[in-house]
Amino acid sequence: MVILGIDPGSRTTGFGVVSLSSRGVLQHISHGVIAMKASDAFPLRMKELGEGMQSILGKYKPQQVVIEKIFLGKNADSAFKLGHARGVALYESVRHGAEIIEYSTRLIKKGITGSGAASKESVQNCLLRLLNLKAINRMDASDALAMATFQAFHLMNPLHRKAVSGQALDL
Amino acid sequence: MVILGIDPGSRTTGFGVVSLSSRGVLQHISHGVIAMKASDAFPLRMKELGEGMQSILGKYKPQQVVIEKIFLGKNADSAFKLGHARGVALYESVRHGAEIIEYSTRLIKKGITGSGAASKESVQNCLLRLLNLKAINRMDASDALAMATFQAFHLMNPLHRKAVSGQALDL
Repeated sequence: MVILGIDPGSRTTGFGVVSLSSRGVLQHISHGVIAMKASDAFPLRMKELGEGMQSILGKYKPQQVVIEKIFLGKNADSAFKLGHARGVALYESVRHGAEIIEYSTRLIKKGITGSGAASKESVQNCLLRLLNLKAINRMDASDALAMATFQAFHLMNPLHRKAVSGQALDL
Repeated sequence: MVILGIDPGSRTTGFGVVSLSSRGVLQHISHGVIAMKASDAFPLRMKELGEGMQSILGKYKPQQVVIEKIFLGKNADSAFKLGHARGVALYESVRHGAEIIEYSTRLIKKGITGSGAASKESVQNCLLRLLNLKAINRMDASDALAMATFQAFHLMNPLHRKAVSGQALDL
């Protein structure tokens, strides 16, 4: 099972890929960012994002794509822009036949670090140990990798699944 | 020159197609809606929207796609959802090589009816006369058709272009 985590943005979209073997071995495959050209007009950046997604989906062929569930911003303009990017990322994922999984950021932080209020640095430090990595080069990629890793835990551990479903109520 | 107007939404996306001949003859080609299945999950609806766009873009091969410029909603959640739909519609348009043109709704209403505050019904009535149509079956399609028609006026009439650029300042 290959799992892709995606952290979409209208300028930079982070991604993280992990695999989970049938014996329950979790392995880091790749992480990075799709960086759109800042000088390009918005519609063209969406094309760059979609093509970046196509390239990642074609290369790693994930069966599941994990994406942040809820956007709680107060700014309609930034929600609108992020919506464009997230729409393109979801669209390409569904077109490639992947199942879409959505979790709140709080739940992912809790699953990775033990605390739903953990800092991004703390999430990154936990990921380095969990995936036996020396470095994660970009923070956007780290968040995406956290989503993919969380989903792998979720699949391999029935207790984790139970804990998540129990805790989901008060998140 | 074939012009496609698009009025994206996360449940229904309106479209309108007009052509403008080299002699300046404006002609209605088609209009309608891409209706997504209400019972389908949001990512799946985005796939239906993208596939609907592919079908329209492939059939009519527009050189220009006109879309509403500014979203002035106060609700971040609805801006987020609309952003997804608009992102997918723009993405497919750019992928098909169309030039993207954005106008404010106010400017389009003014160009079609003479008043930037015109009702949707008033826009539709003007369109019926301008395009020599008996009926426009859906309001979403009417708005999209207004965008395409406005752009055709814009292309065929230098005075219209001048008026628009002058008025754009106080819109």
